[in-house]
Amino acid sequence: MKLTILGCYAATPRTLTNPTSQVLEIKNRLFLIDCGEGTQVQLRKNKLKFSKINHVFISHLHGDHFFGLIGLISTFALLGRTNDLHIYGPKGIKEIIDLQLRLSNSWTNYQLFFHELESKKSEIIYEDDKVIVKTIALRHRVYTNGFLFQEKIGERGLNMKAIQSYEIETCYYQNLKNGKNITLEDGRIVPNEILTFDPIPALSYAFCSDTKYSEDVIPLIENVTVLYHESTFLQSEESLASKTMHSTAKEAAKIALKANANQLILGHYSTRYDSIQLFKEEAETVFKNVLLADDGKSFEF
Amino acid sequence: MKLTILGCYAATPRTLTNPTSQVLEIKNRLFLIDCGEGTQVQLRKNKLKFSKINHVFISHLHGDHFFGLIGLISTFALLGRTNDLHIYGPKGIKEIIDLQLRLSNSWTNYQLFFHELESKKSEIIYEDDKVIVKTIALRHRVYTNGFLFQEKIGERGLNMKAIQSYEIETCYYQNLKNGKNITLEDGRIVPNEILTFDPIPALSYAFCSDTKYSEDVIPLIENVTVLYHESTFLQSEESLASKTMHSTAKEAAKIALKANANQLILGHYSTRYDSIQLFKEEAETVFKNVLLADDGKSFEF
Repeated sequence: MKLTILGCYAATPRTLTNPTSQVLEIKNRLFLIDCGEGTQVQLRKNKLKFSKINHVFISHLHGDHFFGLIGLISTFALLGRTNDLHIYGPKGIKEIIDLQLRLSNSWTNYQLFFHELESKKSEIIYEDDKVIVKTIALRHRVYTNGFLFQEKIGERGLNMKAIQSYEIETCYYQNLKNGKNITLEDGRIVPNEILTFDPIPALSYAFCSDTKYSEDVIPLIENVTVLYHESTFLQSEESLASKTMHSTAKEAAKIALKANANQLILGHYSTRYDSIQLFKEEAETVFKNVLLADDGKSFEF
Repeated sequence: MKLTILGCYAATPRTLTNPTSQVLEIKNRLFLIDCGEGTQVQLRKNKLKFSKINHVFISHLHGDHFFGLIGLISTFALLGRTNDLHIYGPKGIKEIIDLQLRLSNSWTNYQLFFHELESKKSEIIYEDDKVIVKTIALRHRVYTNGFLFQEKIGERGLNMKAIQSYEIETCYYQNLKNGKNITLEDGRIVPNEILTFDPIPALSYAFCSDTKYSEDVIPLIENVTVLYHESTFLQSEESLASKTMHSTAKEAAKIALKANANQLILGHYSTRYDSIQLFKEEAETVFKNVLLADDGKSFEF
């Protein structure tokens, strides 16, 4: 699982900082999460292949999370893309994109599928054989979803030494990987756990931005491998955070702690502070494993 | 008159090149012309004050000319702007901006005025005491306008030596600047041209992008001081230029020559060529005074 931060600063794009966008690589799938202005250039700078992005998840319709989407869609078209593109985002996003394509007398040679979201409850919005994506209802000034990306539990590993000692034939291996017991020719049953190892634990990633502090998310993201939680402000601006429905670094850490996350990544920083290191220091008073997102930074788990 | 190029490359924003946007400073007014994605960051990089931009002119609704507008408008709001902002562009631009502001539950504290254009004939769209702006109907794949910015003829200069020899009082100076004759106390009339000098010639700037080669623009831009004319391609791609309704460098030079422009600036380059110098070389076979636009470059006239 690899996370590349394309932008992680709040509000407006600036000379050296970009609004929210990130790419999650999980089980060889590339998911784009949010798409602030300049995302397509950030993708180029980080040498991420446009053609590998087939699914884009938009948390909410504030500009710093989606103003780059129409440009990305248009660039895909100009570059001759043919693969389908799926957009998951709040109701209204289709109207915004369609209107601009129509007025510019443009169209996409590839198929564009919109999956508009309205539910305020967690729902599965993407699923394939290896990955599942669920929404996380967040509390912000407009309708907002976080996203939980989960690897599915993998196949069980083969204990070749045990398998050979029972002289089990190759054609049964897939059944073993799927957790089934084996009946030998003499009628004896060999339990699966003797012949296999537990699968590698499935990894998960939760993206929670933008949101005020809300413990409602905890049951949804419990035991998550990596939690990206917004920390627009420090505790010293707690009242501003509350007023604008954002979180402080300390609040992000509290969520990580209560959800028993393995790792917390902070982001969506206000540019009012001298150093983002301050966010880490504040969060570490509550939760140990804190990393700082920064534009162009990658994390592997 | 100062022109700052924020972006002058065709199609998509890239790591080192930006789509069309430029700022014209004329008689202490700052006009923003086109607003491709990333324009707000380019304004910051070029240290142009956001608060001084009150008028934005959008040539047409292809993404590389306007995808940065919604971000700029939103950033102005986030920064607490109070000055009115006037947007001049093709019909539909208001719907695009309004829809996005509405769906993001945002509004601007400043007043936003849309001047939507539909006419295929040249019309005056802005006028104050010193500057006049007219549309230039262009021929492209969608409804497109160029813009002609003209200084108004200034006041006549005072010939102080002559004025003093007739002992003319200060209270008549404004009449002299306005071109009026003076009647002396003894009834003699002194013609204005004896007492004043011709005003400094008025400068003008024509922005023509995007457009196919069209001699229709010539009467509108005759004797222009500076002509910015798109040159997406070289003559070697003439058929592609024709098909996509763009111009070659040679065609841009022909327009400059036939319109008797003083200076030609080329831009809107396709990124397929190794060097933009090739555009200058080609244009100079037709017209002498050729300059190359480039991102971050300024020209003073």
